[in-house]
Order: sequence, then structure tokens, then C-alpha cells
Amino acid sequence: MVHPLAPLSIEEINYATSIVKKAHPDKEVLIKACSLEEPPKAFMVPYLEAEKKGRPLLPPPRRAYVPFYYKGTSEFFDCIVNLTSGQLETRTAVASGFHAHLDVDELREIEALCMKHPDVVARISTIGLPDDWEATCDPWIFGNDGSELAKTRLFQIFMYARPKSQPDANHYAHPLAFSPIFETATKKLVTIQELPTGLDDTLKATKPFVPSFVTNSYLPEDQPSLRPLKPLRVIQPEGASYTIKDGRMEWQGWSFFVSLNYREGPVLYDISFKGRSIAYRMALSDMAVPYGDPRQPYLRKEAFDLGDAGAGNTANNLELGCDCLGNITYLDLPLVDANGTAHLSKNVLCIHEEDNGIGWKHTNYRTNRACVVRNRELVLQTIITVANYEYILMFRFNQAADITYEVRATGILSTQPIDEGITQCPFGTVVHPQVLAAIHQHIFCLRFDPAIDGHQNSVVYQETELLPFDENPYRTGYKTVTTLAEKAGGYDLNWERNRTFKVINPNVLNPVNKQPVAYKIHLPVTQHLVADPTSSQSIRAEFADHHIYVTKYRDGELFAGGKHTNQSPGGAGLKSFIRPNDRIVNDDIVLWIQMGLQHVPRIEDFPVMPIEDLKCVLRPVNFFDKNPALDVPPSSQSFNKSTLETGAVSGTEMSSCCQKL
Amino acid sequence: MVHPLAPLSIEEINYATSIVKKAHPDKEVLIKACSLEEPPKAFMVPYLEAEKKGRPLLPPPRRAYVPFYYKGTSEFFDCIVNLTSGQLETRTAVASGFHAHLDVDELREIEALCMKHPDVVARISTIGLPDDWEATCDPWIFGNDGSELAKTRLFQIFMYARPKSQPDANHYAHPLAFSPIFETATKKLVTIQELPTGLDDTLKATKPFVPSFVTNSYLPEDQPSLRPLKPLRVIQPEGASYTIKDGRMEWQGWSFFVSLNYREGPVLYDISFKGRSIAYRMALSDMAVPYGDPRQPYLRKEAFDLGDAGAGNTANNLELGCDCLGNITYLDLPLVDANGTAHLSKNVLCIHEEDNGIGWKHTNYRTNRACVVRNRELVLQTIITVANYEYILMFRFNQAADITYEVRATGILSTQPIDEGITQCPFGTVVHPQVLAAIHQHIFCLRFDPAIDGHQNSVVYQETELLPFDENPYRTGYKTVTTLAEKAGGYDLNWERNRTFKVINPNVLNPVNKQPVAYKIHLPVTQHLVADPTSSQSIRAEFADHHIYVTKYRDGELFAGGKHTNQSPGGAGLKSFIRPNDRIVNDDIVLWIQMGLQHVPRIEDFPVMPIEDLKCVLRPVNFFDKNPALDVPPSSQSFNKSTLETGAVSGTEMSSCCQKL
Repeated sequence: MVHPLAPLSIEEINYATSIVKKAHPDKEVLIKACSLEEPPKAFMVPYLEAEKKGRPLLPPPRRAYVPFYYKGTSEFFDCIVNLTSGQLETRTAVASGFHAHLDVDELREIEALCMKHPDVVARISTIGLPDDWEATCDPWIFGNDGSELAKTRLFQIFMYARPKSQPDANHYAHPLAFSPIFETATKKLVTIQELPTGLDDTLKATKPFVPSFVTNSYLPEDQPSLRPLKPLRVIQPEGASYTIKDGRMEWQGWSFFVSLNYREGPVLYDISFKGRSIAYRMALSDMAVPYGDPRQPYLRKEAFDLGDAGAGNTANNLELGCDCLGNITYLDLPLVDANGTAHLSKNVLCIHEEDNGIGWKHTNYRTNRACVVRNRELVLQTIITVANYEYILMFRFNQAADITYEVRATGILSTQPIDEGITQCPFGTVVHPQVLAAIHQHIFCLRFDPAIDGHQNSVVYQETELLPFDENPYRTGYKTVTTLAEKAGGYDLNWERNRTFKVINPNVLNPVNKQPVAYKIHLPVTQHLVADPTSSQSIRAEFADHHIYVTKYRDGELFAGGKHTNQSPGGAGLKSFIRPNDRIVNDDIVLWIQMGLQHVPRIEDFPVMPIEDLKCVLRPVNFFDKNPALDVPPSSQSFNKSTLETGAVSGTEMSSCCQKL
Repeated sequence: MVHPLAPLSIEEINYATSIVKKAHPDKEVLIKACSLEEPPKAFMVPYLEAEKKGRPLLPPPRRAYVPFYYKGTSEFFDCIVNLTSGQLETRTAVASGFHAHLDVDELREIEALCMKHPDVVARISTIGLPDDWEATCDPWIFGNDGSELAKTRLFQIFMYARPKSQPDANHYAHPLAFSPIFETATKKLVTIQELPTGLDDTLKATKPFVPSFVTNSYLPEDQPSLRPLKPLRVIQPEGASYTIKDGRMEWQGWSFFVSLNYREGPVLYDISFKGRSIAYRMALSDMAVPYGDPRQPYLRKEAFDLGDAGAGNTANNLELGCDCLGNITYLDLPLVDANGTAHLSKNVLCIHEEDNGIGWKHTNYRTNRACVVRNRELVLQTIITVANYEYILMFRFNQAADITYEVRATGILSTQPIDEGITQCPFGTVVHPQVLAAIHQHIFCLRFDPAIDGHQNSVVYQETELLPFDENPYRTGYKTVTTLAEKAGGYDLNWERNRTFKVINPNVLNPVNKQPVAYKIHLPVTQHLVADPTSSQSIRAEFADHHIYVTKYRDGELFAGGKHTNQSPGGAGLKSFIRPNDRIVNDDIVLWIQMGLQHVPRIEDFPVMPIEDLKCVLRPVNFFDKNPALDVPPSSQSFNKSTLETGAVSGTEMSSCCQKL
């Protein structure tokens, strides 16, 4: 029996697309995706309750969401197929100005067309590449600058060069100063845009290409030498401590249903710890990556990697022992191609345990008895590659009931040419001779649909402030002040008052201290989107102007940037989920949490970038009646079997303070 | 040959204290510490240079810092002993109002005296403890409220109860409502202070003690059951990748001299990466832990755990396999007792490697070639126990030239009695029936004495702001703005502008982009000390009012709270290191970096607290000419030997998306 939240299987995808095709006998359809259309929450909540009681209700009909084009046109439809009845249930023409995400088939096709196109070939010939070099390209989403042109679905193709013999050479070290634009539906070349190479919009005459003194390769075989490093292995002699049965993950008191889709990648449902409900649904909702270069075409560069491409679509097929250590379980994701044929994308999610140091410790100095437990974590990791760039997306669960969402940014900076001799650029960093990496931001939006001891929740923020001096003669006393968030909308952190947001259940009080049970949100205070609020970049990134948004729950409101972000004019996302006078008190609510990274490139970020990481922690506050990790087995040598390392130490005067065997 | 920066050996300590005693034939001296007095930086810089060239200069005389009392008096002296000449070089009477840190001998003595004192015994008898229960106590530093009394060196002793048969019972769950105060020099009881138990200063009549319904133990044997957890082991078949020779640590391009002392715990000197100098000295300088309860005696509660007790003095003697995994090297620290006799405190610092996930990754989607390296870290860890509380202090070095200082707070909350029925308290949280944990802060001050490609450094802060609209027609463009910090003093972060502080060397430019070589400081934006600036708590915590301080380097200016923080009135610390018109441009400078934690207790923090962690990252910016981790060997299964975990997975509909062997 298929679980109502399980991803569509290969068979279901093929069936769903066949139904869509049958419904359009006279048209050739181009399938953009085929993914589970989730049952309404109002159905799923009782279903999951009944399932826990071992008396599952009748499953709802399985539905597929299938966005498609009429091939060769811009006619774009959202449709829902009922797999149980075999019917195409709804078919909605998508409003003009909204376009489907890109897919890999499309990318490869456009790339090939571009490199073969006579105008492009001619333009390449003008730069006089050496015989042993060739041009290559990165098709980019076009973005939106509010122009007429931006209403058409387009690809902006950034050009580079590399040695012919080295298909894996780092071509980002050799950007070219022109950029073809193709129309996606007709596959026609719209124009070849010349790129500014100075500090302003001036376009300069093409200079002959001179390969710079270094290729700046990140490949191991191209390094002068690799540093010696001794192996470090994680061994789990009795196997992993988690289980996954029928899609439900159980680990150290945690229980949740794990799923995947083409857009969000991993999605977790019905999350509980020791039988206490915490969330109905959690997933990364969106991401905006606006660039700071004020010139055409760069001012249009704003990637919504989830909406424009999809975290499931772009997920790496992970390899054992490369992306994590220890005992690892991989999950695959069925995807669909443009013709509607399903295929399995292997190993898109890896699941493993990590040791994250000490969990808690206390030594009684009177008796010298030390009690210590380690902090074991369960990690669900997906790595996506979006052209030049990589994101490592992780859910982490620990034994003290924390849920951490971690993002690591890595991969290669998107580069552009800059004139020889220019080293100072206010909106970018020279990372290689005649190569500029523009300043940009990454603002991630984590969607947290809480269920703190049930679905009637509220949001409060707690601050600390000095007590009035009449109650506080020595002026050292301070207190917490708690404010209820009453209206749907955006809220910000305030470090001066240590403002901390909590999701509470006002109907359930802690048995000991009578505080409402809660989870708090540990979120670093980071910069909002810098672009002016009236700019296209800001209007499209509807979530990026406040640290936290809270909305009333409504089915189908999943994507902070809107359902279709590719070249979107905005206005169909998070801000449209806020209706006038929506109250969010003791209600079914959703939080949208922003994790921001202002990326002023360092030369150290090139040719490939060491990870930058961001974490958001959800942590219980007066939810339990004591430390929920008291029952973690003690950390002991018999369990951990560590090794005393003495060989590494030598010398005289340290010997007085070195452990002897 | 003893290195000039090596800690004093057992023999050196015994020799130093014998010199002090000989110099005072007519007095009985009470030794408070005996520790290396560092050679002046002006000597050490050329010495270390010469050492690197393999032609070490003649070592300087070994000097010991020996603070001591005339036993039974408050006459307190700082003295310097020259071990090379065998002379007591200087002896300075410490100004009145400044007192020595506490030590364990003293603590045990006061504890025993208190529990035997007839008045205390009588007061205990009034509460009618059950026959199988007994009282116990935590001697606390007295703090300072500006009163006359505070000028005398005192102990404030907090009283608790526990079952007689359980010496490791969690007595913090049973605080008593009175607190003896002892004078340290004379060991006399000053008074027994009654404690308020409501929400104001009102003192209530003693109620008979009723042990609450749970003992709230953190001991494993007291838990109803321990959760099953399978072992996870770190195996390093070829041993660790680091070496320590004559006190110098080498690992993955890193080189530094590692030392320890009674006060700061670990101290690192002469830190470089791939031969490039980064810092002269790094150590945790101080820590302030002010409490928010506005009432006596709690308003005096402000611990400076390093200055008041010492990170070396209170360091745990770590046990193999309990506090870290893998191949571990331990360092010991010679300490001194009150009589001047040296002893070795074993395993106060553990050194090991950790795998911290992916270091960098890129997949070329055209060729599907993935390049990935892991992020190996070198960790130096010390864990201190200060009565109820634990701090885990870590230096972390990674392969991409980052230095991370990490603090993890754990241990047991300092508790106080509160009347039955009170659950809401503005300045604390009820964590157990009739037990309050007051709101408090932990503000750590990391001292960073930089040497970015040499000792002539400056501090700048970089911010991002919108470009003026005339250069920015689409209002999406933004730029970085860099400001030079010219005057010594305090500086703050500003998230709205992504203000980031950098230490630069204005005399060394990056060969590619001509930017000054730099290290930036990744610091979370956290709340300053909440107490009013005119309060004793604020005046004593001189460093806690700004995120970053910068001062001119001067020998001996090491401790942000002053040399002697115990009951200090303040005024002898960081703020006194700032002279009028001190400029900090292209000079030898020191940074004082604040890491703050506002601790509003959760009931989940009791009976023992799951770690809260804080990190500050020092990261190269245009210091190298490319990613310095390109030469890390690739992450591969042959190297990592991970295991495919399939046993954990079962069920039907997931099988379509589960990895098969």
C-alpha cells in the first residue's frame, strides 16, 4: 500500500504523463515535471493520527502535478492528474510572464544549439582563440529587469574558453566578453549581447584572447602536489542506529516521514520526538541569489535555484564514501524527462549518523565523578549542482530534541571578464587575472509548518531588558519580555534585545513551570536583500526583506518565491499568502525562516570555494520537563574505543607535560 | 633546552616558590600561582625568526610569576622570580580591593569549615532535614556590589540538600534559603545571609524542608532506562596527521607553539599557515557571567571564571575515549599548591583530528566528474568545571586556513529556592518544583594578537550599501565600503550593513588583485551586557559593551577584566589599555573579540544542560592567491572505507527509491 505522502513511483509517473498526453491527442506536449500533488492537510492530519493508532484510514486518491508546454510554444499549463480515477482533473493556463523552470534536457539542447549557431561561431572566431583552445558556455536563467523582452522565456548564455584537451578544465577562469540570448520555445538566437569589461557600461572593442598565465584548475592531478593526510574512518560495527520502514524514519526518539520531490529535494512530514508532535512539514522553500553588478545583463542575474531549476532535479548522484563517512543509506528519486518518461535519479539523499562532540557533561569536583554523553546526530544530506555552484543541504537531528537545518555553499563563482589592470571594483573581487566575481547574496527560505503538541500554535518573541530602577537599585537586574505576534507578516531579529522567536502551543502548559510548551528558533542575524525595495530583484524575492515571516496555513502555499519563479515578475509568492487581517494566534500557522549569506568573494573562493556554512536551530523551550537527553548512554572508552596517540609527540621540555603510556 | 614559551616545569615551579619562601624567612607565604612570566614580545619576535632559520638566539632568562599572600592576612603581592639568576626580581603589593583568584585547596577548606561551623549547623537544624538527607554547599566568589563589605576577600556559600547515601545526587534541585558568608583570610564566618524566596526582597520564615517529588538526577543509573545506541568509532589506522616537537605543533600546513597556564588554559603562539604568519598569540582572555536577579545577594553574582578561578586550575583531567574520538594526544599542566609544591595536572588539553563534512565540491554537469574533498579539522580541547558549570573550550584549525574558536556551555545551572506556587518570574525560570534558575549572560573575550604577514597590522570594517541611483538605474546594484579603524577602542557589528571586521597588513598586497592581505572575523551578532553601564557588573566587565575592541600592543596587557578580577572594582582591565589618542593604524595591535550568550534558562537545561555553542571564525581574505585547500587529497571510498547501510531500510513503496546492493 502506497503511503499518501510517498513520492510518485516510476510507474505512477509514466501513467500520469500518459494520461496528460492522451488528453491532448492533437498536440505534442513537453513535460516539465511530474510529482506528487499532496493530499490536503485537513485529510492528512486525521490520516496520520489513525495510522499511529494502527488503524489507517482509506488512503486518498493519488494525484500527480504535471506542468507542461505545448511543444515549441509558450503555452504553459499546470495540471493535476488523478491516478486513482485515471482522469486529468484540472488544467490551468499559467498567467503570461510566468514560465516553467529549466531542465537538463533543455540545457543540453540550448548549449549544443548555441555552440553550433553560425553567428555565435562567427563571434567566437573574432577573438582568435589559440588552436588548442575552444569556447564553452553556461546557459543561465535570463532573470527579469521589468523589460518587454523579459516576458519571453529566454536563456542568457555566458561564454568561456578552455583548452580543448581538458573537458574538466576550469573555464570560469576564462570568461568571454559576449553573451548570446536564446528564446527557449523556438530555440532561436535573439541576440548576442556584448558585455562591459570596465567599471561602467562602456563596451570596448574585442581584444584577442590571451590565455592567462595559469589555468587555475581545481583538479587534483593539476596540483603541484597533494599534501599528505592520514585516513580517518568512521566505523559502526553494529550498523546504524536508525530504521526506515515504509518511508518512516525512526532514530533516537525521532519519528518522521521522509520524502523527496523534483523542486524542494528532501521534504519531512509529521516530525515528532518521543511521541510529541513538533512539525507537520519541513522543507527548504526557496532561495534567492541576487548579484550586485549594476550593469546589463548582470543586473538581471538573480537565481532562484529551487524554483528556477529544482533541488531534486539538480541533486548530485552521491557516491559511497565521498560525501559522508560511516554507515550510509541512500534514497533515489524518480524524475521525468521532457517526453514524460520516468527515470530513477540514484542516491540523491544520503542518510547517516555523525558524532558531534560532547552532548552534555558535568564533573562533581567533590567526588571527581564525571558524567558525559556524546552528541550523536542524524544527518539527511542532499547536494545540488546548479551550473557553476553547489549547495549542500542538510537536516540534522540530535539527541536533545534539536532540529538543525544547515546549508553549506561551495562550488565555483560565476565569473565575468574585466579589463587588464583593473584590481579595485566596488561591486566585485578580481579572483584571477582579468576575471571578476561579482558581489552577491544567498538568501535561503526554510518553510517550517509547526505542530507543537498539535496544530493550534502561536508565535511570540522574547526579549531581555533592564528592570526599572525602582525595582532594581543596583541597576544589574533585568527581565524577559514576551510579545505575541498577532498579524501575519514579516518580523525581524533585534540583537540589542536578544529578540528570540518561539512557536508556542498556548493550550498546553509545561507541567512543572506552567509555561506554554515551545520551540525557539536560533537564527543568525544577517543582512536582508540589499537591492532597493522598488527593484525587480526585491519584488521577486518576496521573502528576503524580513528574517521571519508567519502566515496562516493554507493548502498549496509552499513556495516563498511563487509557484513559477523563472523570470517571474513576482507577486505570486509569500506576500500573496498574507491576506489583510490574517490573524496567526492559536491557529494553524506556517513560519518562513530566512538564512542569509552576503557573499563578497575572496580570491580564496576561487577556483573552487571552501564551504561557507549557515545554520538554523529549532530547540525545545519548556516543551519537556527536563533535559530530554538524560537517557543517552554514557560516553565510555569501552564504547568508543579511542586510541592514545603518543607517536606524534617528541622533544624534551614538553615531555614533562606529555601523557606517557 | 627549554623553549622560552614553554610552561614552567615541576622543577622550575618548586625552585621558584623556594626562592619566594627564602626571600620571606620571617613570614609564612600562601602561594596562589606559579606560572611562566613571558619574555617581552620585542625579544620573542626576533627569537622566533632566528629559530625558524635554525639559528636560535640565546634564550632569555626563565622568569616565574608568583602571586602570594602572607598566610592569614590580606597582604597580597605580585612577584617575579628570575629562575636563571635565582633572584626574586620584583615584589609589588597589590592595591587594596583587588584579591587573588580562588583555588581548590581554599575551596575544600572553606567548604569543610562551613559545614562544621556551629552557627551553620544550628541554622541547618532549623529546616528539619529528613534523617536520610544532609546539607551540602557550593562556595561562590562574593562578587562586588560597591559596598564596604565587598572590599574584604569573602566567600558566598550557597547551601543545598541531598540524600546522605548519594554523594553524586544533584543537590542543585534542593537549594536552601540561607547563605553563609566567610572571610577567606581569617576563615571566620561573617554572617548567615537569609535569601529571598518570592519575587521581591521579602524574607520569609523558614519552612520545614520537604524533599520534592523527584530528585532530578543526571546519573545514568538513576534513569528509568537508557536508550539503545549503536557504537560509532573513529579509526585512524595510520595514526594522527599532526606532530608536536619541542612544543611546536605541525598539521596540514599549520605551525604553532602550544602552551598552557593556570589562568588562560591553552595559549597558542606564533601561528602560521604554509609559512605565512597569522598571529603572535591567541588565548581566551576572560569571561563575565552576570546574573539578572536584582536582589541581594544575587545582584553580586558575576563570575569571571578565568580571572576568578582559572581555566588551567579548573581544567578537567580528561579520560581517553570520553571527551573525544579517534587518536588522541593529551597534554598535562604543572600546577602549584598553596604551599608552593608543584604537581602535574594530567590530561588538561586533548588534541585530536575531526572530520567536519565536506570541505569543497564541484561537479561538472557536462562530464559528470565530481571533485570533492573533506574538511579535516585539528581540535585542541580543554574542559573546565567551575563548581556547578562546565565550559568546553576549543581551538579548531581547518585545511582552508580558517581558525575557529568554539565555546560549548554545559554543566548544571546555579539554582536558588523559590516559593511553592510561583511559576512566572521575570528574571528566571522555574526548572524544578520550588527551584529557580536566574537569567544570566556568558560573555567570552578572545584575545587575538595578530601578525598578518608580520606585526604591522590595521583593522578595517567592510560594509555593503546600495549604489547611488545615478550609477544604478535598476536599483539592484550595491557595493562594498571599507572604513579604517583609526583609534583604539570598542567597535560594534551592524547586520543591516553586513559590517565585517578584517585585520589587514597594509604593507602587503595580494599579487593578483592588489588588495591588502587580510583575515576577517566571522562573529555572531549578540547582545551586550544588559546591566546598566553605571552598575558594578558593567564596570567590572570592561570588555562586554562592544563586540570588538582594538588596542595598541603593550607587554603584560593580557586580561580584559584586569589581572585580579576576584571582587575587583574594575578599572584595571581592557579600558585601561586604551590610552588617549592611541592610534592603531599600521602598528602592532591586539583584538579583543566578544562571544556572547544570553542564557534564559529552559527547563530542558536541567538537571544538566545540553551544550549551547558559540563560534568565532578567523578566515583569510585575499591573503592567498587561490583556495588554499586545493591540495587536499580527494575524498574517495578507498580512503574513507564507508559502509553501505541497507539493513536499516524496509517496506514496500520506498523500495522503488531505495539503493539496492
